Amino acid sequence: MSGNTFGRLFRLTTFGESHGRAVGGVIDGCPPGLHADIPFIERELARRKPGQSDYTTPRGETDSVIFSSGILEGMTTGTPIGFWILNTDQHEEEYDHLRKLFRPSHADLTYQQKYGIRDHRGGGRASARETVSRVVAGAFAKLLLMRGNITVQAYVSSIGPVSLTTNYTGLSLDKTEDSPVRCPDPHTSAEMEKYLQDIMRERNSTGGTITCIARHVPPGLGEPVFDKLQAALAHAMLSIPAVKGFEYGSGFKGTTMKGSEHNDPYALVTEPDGSVQIRTLSNRSGGIQGGISSGEDIFFRVAFKPISTIGLEQLTLDDQGRNVRFTGARRYDPCPVPRAVVIVEAMTALVLADYFLMQKCMS
Amino acid sequence: MSGNTFGRLFRLTTFGESHGRAVGGVIDGCPPGLHADIPFIERELARRKPGQSDYTTPRGETDSVIFSSGILEGMTTGTPIGFWILNTDQHEEEYDHLRKLFRPSHADLTYQQKYGIRDHRGGGRASARETVSRVVAGAFAKLLLMRGNITVQAYVSSIGPVSLTTNYTGLSLDKTEDSPVRCPDPHTSAEMEKYLQDIMRERNSTGGTITCIARHVPPGLGEPVFDKLQAALAHAMLSIPAVKGFEYGSGFKGTTMKGSEHNDPYALVTEPDGSVQIRTLSNRSGGIQGGISSGEDIFFRVAFKPISTIGLEQLTLDDQGRNVRFTGARRYDPCPVPRAVVIVEAMTALVLADYFLMQKCMS
Amino acid sequence: MSGNTFGRLFRLTTFGESHGRAVGGVIDGCPPGLHADIPFIERELARRKPGQSDYTTPRGETDSVIFSSGILEGMTTGTPIGFWILNTDQHEEEYDHLRKLFRPSHADLTYQQKYGIRDHRGGGRASARETVSRVVAGAFAKLLLMRGNITVQAYVSSIGPVSLTTNYTGLSLDKTEDSPVRCPDPHTSAEMEKYLQDIMRERNSTGGTITCIARHVPPGLGEPVFDKLQAALAHAMLSIPAVKGFEYGSGFKGTTMKGSEHNDPYALVTEPDGSVQIRTLSNRSGGIQGGISSGEDIFFRVAFKPISTIGLEQLTLDDQGRNVRFTGARRYDPCPVPRAVVIVEAMTALVLADYFLMQKCMS
Amino acid sequence: MSGNTFGRLFRLTTFGESHGRAVGGVIDGCPPGLHADIPFIERELARRKPGQSDYTTPRGETDSVIFSSGILEGMTTGTPIGFWILNTDQHEEEYDHLRKLFRPSHADLTYQQKYGIRDHRGGGRASARETVSRVVAGAFAKLLLMRGNITVQAYVSSIGPVSLTTNYTGLSLDKTEDSPVRCPDPHTSAEMEKYLQDIMRERNSTGGTITCIARHVPPGLGEPVFDKLQAALAHAMLSIPAVKGFEYGSGFKGTTMKGSEHNDPYALVTEPDGSVQIRTLSNRSGGIQGGISSGEDIFFRVAFKPISTIGLEQLTLDDQGRNVRFTGARRYDPCPVPRAVVIVEAMTALVLADYFLMQKCMS
Repeated sequence: MSGNTFGRLFRLTTFGESHGRAVGGVIDGCPPGLHADIPFIERELARRKPGQSDYTTPRGETDSVIFSSGILEGMTTGTPIGFWILNTDQHEEEYDHLRKLFRPSHADLTYQQKYGIRDHRGGGRASARETVSRVVAGAFAKLLLMRGNITVQAYVSSIGPVSLTTNYTGLSLDKTEDSPVRCPDPHTSAEMEKYLQDIMRERNSTGGTITCIARHVPPGLGEPVFDKLQAALAHAMLSIPAVKGFEYGSGFKGTTMKGSEHNDPYALVTEPDGSVQIRTLSNRSGGIQGGISSGEDIFFRVAFKPISTIGLEQLTLDDQGRNVRFTGARRYDPCPVPRAVVIVEAMTALVLADYFLMQKCMS
Repeated sequence: MSGNTFGRLFRLTTFGESHGRAVGGVIDGCPPGLHADIPFIERELARRKPGQSDYTTPRGETDSVIFSSGILEGMTTGTPIGFWILNTDQHEEEYDHLRKLFRPSHADLTYQQKYGIRDHRGGGRASARETVSRVVAGAFAKLLLMRGNITVQAYVSSIGPVSLTTNYTGLSLDKTEDSPVRCPDPHTSAEMEKYLQDIMRERNSTGGTITCIARHVPPGLGEPVFDKLQAALAHAMLSIPAVKGFEYGSGFKGTTMKGSEHNDPYALVTEPDGSVQIRTLSNRSGGIQGGISSGEDIFFRVAFKPISTIGLEQLTLDDQGRNVRFTGARRYDPCPVPRAVVIVEAMTALVLADYFLMQKCMS
Repeated sequence: MSGNTFGRLFRLTTFGESHGRAVGGVIDGCPPGLHADIPFIERELARRKPGQSDYTTPRGETDSVIFSSGILEGMTTGTPIGFWILNTDQHEEEYDHLRKLFRPSHADLTYQQKYGIRDHRGGGRASARETVSRVVAGAFAKLLLMRGNITVQAYVSSIGPVSLTTNYTGLSLDKTEDSPVRCPDPHTSAEMEKYLQDIMRERNSTGGTITCIARHVPPGLGEPVFDKLQAALAHAMLSIPAVKGFEYGSGFKGTTMKGSEHNDPYALVTEPDGSVQIRTLSNRSGGIQGGISSGEDIFFRVAFKPISTIGLEQLTLDDQGRNVRFTGARRYDPCPVPRAVVIVEAMTALVLADYFLMQKCMS
Repeated sequence: MSGNTFGRLFRLTTFGESHGRAVGGVIDGCPPGLHADIPFIERELARRKPGQSDYTTPRGETDSVIFSSGILEGMTTGTPIGFWILNTDQHEEEYDHLRKLFRPSHADLTYQQKYGIRDHRGGGRASARETVSRVVAGAFAKLLLMRGNITVQAYVSSIGPVSLTTNYTGLSLDKTEDSPVRCPDPHTSAEMEKYLQDIMRERNSTGGTITCIARHVPPGLGEPVFDKLQAALAHAMLSIPAVKGFEYGSGFKGTTMKGSEHNDPYALVTEPDGSVQIRTLSNRSGGIQGGISSGEDIFFRVAFKPISTIGLEQLTLDDQGRNVRFTGARRYDPCPVPRAVVIVEAMTALVLADYFLMQKCMS
């Protein structure tokens, strides 16, 4: 109810502030007998970690997860998986000047208005630090999905004005992790890096977009009317800090097309395994019809605003309504999208795992 | 769980297929003592009704609501409001040719795959007919919001390639209902009409976008982390049939900006009532920070794909995998957005009413 | 949230007041492809119906259900099953004297205190009339459970001081419906009838208990920690009007035993089908261990208070705090239990169907 | 969904096995600005702790809670309160003989049947060790209720055959904590102790009952139809390990009464503060009418079975179906009720806090 739980059958409940003792969560509904692949979980966390490239804040988060329950001798037991990550890099004094200040386009003022009290240290609960718990749970969701051969892969499709023009079907997504900005096209990746270097020199920030693809999702996932698969994905994406938009399949561009151009024609297609399936020849539907997965690739695009924290001096107000000049931070990411790739994947995996279990009940 | 309930405190559960006996629902959690303004509810329904203009299907839906509970002597009692609308315009025989056919970009095949059985008549549960229940519940939500002076207004901001370039702040939204396509700018409205006439002549269809604005939303609505206000709005919008995208505030365009340009500066502003408030001078945040309403206007844009039903002959498959030629329908809307304006408003009102009640618990 | 929905995967949402236009509900999550056996549903409703014996109010409820959705050609489609029962026997004028009166041990005053407004006609939403919707949904739940050979049978085990001493294992439960008071033991049934005749002559009322048994429940249903199977059953039972207590297995009596006497010893048992199973030789556990079904019979007992409506004159207060004499009603049940048997079964079936679907997700 | 979350607005999600690294939970929905009274929380934990008297197992649990979030400078912030208690007294080797054994009337076999895997160490998730998290959350719920002067007090009303005959209104509940068995009547307490000494000498165990009273609950809490206040209380109580029954107000005994004797008459009563209120002269209703609190004391009784762990040798089966003799444990509680008093209070407080917040939304 209070927005700290995600999912219905495969559920994640999180806790933790940026500069409290720990962030963590409880994964509930993870089926028993799943191999809890700790090295895989740690690799996923490393993809979110600060300091992994020149384009991320050097905050020294260790992001070392402690699992306290739900796993016995390397296997999930079906009981809740409690976990936490201690916050080790706490320099409380650094944040004292923020105690009474409302930073522009941060959640300082709205938290104050909502709760009448707020943890001012590094954004408190509103900090993107909480997303570490999403990555942990997302890793378990991916492990569950792997049982059905379902994969989730995201990549950076634009940074500021630098945009990847090739469609995902023309890209080698396996190269995403080779790029410091997680753009699988080497040429565009280089341009993005160049743009980010300029932005960092300016002590400024910028936004970008991430594209995500889920393959081998079986037909039938999704719950009409209100919980269409795209509705759950949109919910999941817009819950990520800094996200401003979501579109799937033909998206906003599709609105200018005609029905005769947009409809995906059906055809019988012989699959690699020799079976004959009803498939669509195009996929403007983005793998979902009427809220239910069709078996085609699910793909969507997520918009991230420029990071609000910048190194330039800004003018703002304090809690007495006085003008205050302040300079954001010594350390921050110039752009949210490279590190957000794994968060987009995690939230996608959580949605799919939840709907996968839900469909099992009905069949 | 099965996707037929929306909301947590202010809840709507719906039932009904396009060509079953009735569509309807149960509104639960509507506070007691609210005047159930039946003429207002009927006006809202009239805005969704087919046949209201040249650009909507002439299906003779009467859309006459029967309330069966929860209202005593014109007032809500706090108990569930059950309601239904009988489906009167049922020509079952018309739909018999659809029994074994999968129409392109409709939910025929995915429903069959999910449930193993489907109501083929007019799309069954996947038909936009179900949205009539959303409008009924949305009307109650609007009545509740009016207590707090909160208003929700949507309008058509593009149809196919014809796009309204003026920002909402420069428009007279009260003129929306004067336009047959629900575009408040007379010049653009005329162009949209012209485009739709061409589309209809071609027996084709097109898509469009709707912009929605909620004013006077008090600061503090929204639940971090997973149930940010924008996440709930995105969920609500993507649950509407034919919706492909959602963006709020600066949206996708904002991704190309720099942080220094995008951040909304704070200032003390003297309000019309003489009080001095902390406000933002710009509103790229779209009225939401960190998932919580800031008190500024909330605005967002919703993308609708072209209607899948067209009057042109299409080639498709039947349930035996045989090629079949078929012609969509004699009657259909050439574009979803004019009638969807009230649905977008209804879903927005449902979200805000729910979060409004949620915030009351905490304060 | 507002208490009008029951269940998580197999869900019932109800609406309706005793003397409004209709009572009804929405069954959501019922799997597709289930034969909607209308005659069976009607037989279940007949068991709850007033006027079926000398010991029930003669209120002329027709209890004729209208199904409006979710069923196509006699089969469930997986979409929500909307239904309603019109209230035909409305004599509003009869209830006018109750408008400002608080009847002792009725919900008149508490509804007034909670909502500030109430439907005074026949108890409004607090009337047992709402249980008709439970019986409809319970019938679908029973149809689902039959797929797994699971049966639910309840009977009257006491009326006032007249108590059935034989354990359920020594009774022919098939004879329950032969008894006008639904006690399967003919001798005790006759004594109960005699007691009820005395009570009716006095224009008084009395209480009683119902025992319920679920057989063939597979091992593994139930969700630790907070949603143990017995917790869900207790919740379901205490939600029935007039219920004051619940006990399962050894119940309250078991509290006086010693552990060595109470523990159920395990043994290998050869089943009728020749298989060898781990079973318990006794069943003080009532078919549930640690919140999870064990495969043994689940049985429990439910306490009902005397009906608050009596034919004797009572002294009470009106909404001005004035003393008022009033006489309950010309027509009422002298004891709630005979008609409540089918309601206990329905709620049990709803719980088991829900947990049955839940377990499918995990396996 | 998986039963590890309790409540809707005031919510507790727990994790942890008896012999894993830690038990703990997340309290979500606790309003901001509440003084997090750590000494009070520790006193509550001390009441549940093993080793506090001669009648509890000497297991050396330190039960030292670590709070990791949601509290800033001693005040709740409205964000989730994450907490854990490390399991320090782990002697894994002690439990090795239980790996393949099914202890009678424990959850060993049902967990194995449900999950196909189980943590055999000390009962794993089924151990009463999890209740420590309930006590932590219950303490916060009590702190919230204190704002409204609502109190929750429980005591032991029977142990085995030794039963307290005085009604709660005739007892000094403040003396409960003076008794090693938590019975406020010194004479009965002494008898209970004597009985427990006999039971311990026999290396056996016994059951008992707990009575709980909530005072100053305002009228209006409770949600008809399915979430009546008594239904939520019954759910809460039956979720506690070893509980077999629940009754409130007149309970099972009330079933033998006549309506004229059972109905609670209304009267105008002058309160200590001089105000005149509509009250009932008796309280067989147990403070709840139609599922809604009436303002009278809420009271109920909870049945606990004898502890399944005993010191006597028992015969049971292993996972190969072989007969095995085993002796329960060197250390165990002879009776569950003295330590369960604070658990009953905690669960009651959680229910009332949840319903208290729920009612705020509607008013």
